[in-house]
Amino acid sequence: MKQNKYDDPAFFSAYQQMNRSVKGLEGAGEWHVFKSLLPDLRDQHVLDLGCGFGWHCRYAREQQASSVVGVDLSEKMLQKAREMTEDDLAVTYLQMPIEDISFSPDQFDVVISSLAFHYVKDFGELCQKVYHCLKTGGTFLFSVEHPIFTARAQQDWTVDEQGRRLHWPVDHYQEEGMRKTSFLAENVIKYHRTISTYMNDLIEQGFRIKAVQEPMPTEEMRKDDPLMQDEMRRPMFLILSAEKVSPAT
Amino acid sequence: MKQNKYDDPAFFSAYQQMNRSVKGLEGAGEWHVFKSLLPDLRDQHVLDLGCGFGWHCRYAREQQASSVVGVDLSEKMLQKAREMTEDDLAVTYLQMPIEDISFSPDQFDVVISSLAFHYVKDFGELCQKVYHCLKTGGTFLFSVEHPIFTARAQQDWTVDEQGRRLHWPVDHYQEEGMRKTSFLAENVIKYHRTISTYMNDLIEQGFRIKAVQEPMPTEEMRKDDPLMQDEMRRPMFLILSAEKVSPAT
Repeated sequence: MKQNKYDDPAFFSAYQQMNRSVKGLEGAGEWHVFKSLLPDLRDQHVLDLGCGFGWHCRYAREQQASSVVGVDLSEKMLQKAREMTEDDLAVTYLQMPIEDISFSPDQFDVVISSLAFHYVKDFGELCQKVYHCLKTGGTFLFSVEHPIFTARAQQDWTVDEQGRRLHWPVDHYQEEGMRKTSFLAENVIKYHRTISTYMNDLIEQGFRIKAVQEPMPTEEMRKDDPLMQDEMRRPMFLILSAEKVSPAT
Repeated sequence: MKQNKYDDPAFFSAYQQMNRSVKGLEGAGEWHVFKSLLPDLRDQHVLDLGCGFGWHCRYAREQQASSVVGVDLSEKMLQKAREMTEDDLAVTYLQMPIEDISFSPDQFDVVISSLAFHYVKDFGELCQKVYHCLKTGGTFLFSVEHPIFTARAQQDWTVDEQGRRLHWPVDHYQEEGMRKTSFLAENVIKYHRTISTYMNDLIEQGFRIKAVQEPMPTEEMRKDDPLMQDEMRRPMFLILSAEKVSPAT
């Protein structure tokens, strides 16, 4: 059974108060980078894995995507997503674990995912499923928590006695697997993988890496929120853009 | 003027005592991974950037490479390299900064480099020069100190009062550029770059990423040297393998 923390009332309530939940895409520090890597979505069939409140699904429709499928494990998240998407028949929300997707071959032109895959145990298997349902030449674009960020289960700064942030500690980097973390609640299960695993799983599946980004908040964001300045000290997110190439290439 | 620390007598003397200098390739914790990514070198023209004592050049000849060019800034290193290479006319050692190479188009089938590019200021420019002298379909394989390792100038563990290693500290990750480090001597100038810069510079130049490795020492090495166990805690090296693809692809 996959952990479904987002349907835990306390977790859900805390998540709802995050900037990215209230303000949507513009409240997410990495959105400007993610957006810049999106292909033209006009007339495209788009799949969003771990769609949450559906912000990316609605964005895709604003960009004239012809259809969007959003997948999420959390019924509570999808309920809110459906409310906010109103009566757009071109958006379909499906409640299921990301790992269980089973779409037709070449069903999508673009597959995206925002900060969901660090909840997935087997990334290689997921790559295989995405490759299967993506058209050749299609884009697979996703963000995850950065391996520098996920290595230690604590996922927090080293601070001095006054609570000042000294540096970001890394440990257990090469030990991939489960991490019981605290994120809005206790015992949130995430999976740490190395940078090389993310890259090689994609490459071995038949994707070509198109871009790698470790996004920084914009200067404006850093001015508005002094803590954002610390985002220059270590990367929190990793964004990968890959293209499905035909086996012959 | 490029810093030429390897011709500094104290630095050179300390470097000569390192495992990798005494034992050669087998004394280098990352060699087994680097070797596994090398293409078949038989009948190939090989360029080694930052060849040092020429271990990789001689290895390439053992693998039946038809010619090898080794480039290094340090005359002392090359003197030793030449002594050890004896009268192999198929190996040419050139004393110059890596940044200044200027070979003919398509002169090489394989370009390799071991732990040298973190001394190079402009990696994008270097990619351009390698692309120029490498044949289409040729392999560009190199190792560098990992960005997790080079972010802080101190390049050392956080230790407790008993000197026990607590974790590896990361800071200033997004601030690329010069780091004055201590490595066998004071004020060794290295350049920190993010993972994304290494990747994107290659991709934008026209390389396709074939593999990404963050090597771990073998189990045997970890048994022989308890400190090697700590190499599981954070990656020290990054190895990238890339293929020159034609502009049309």
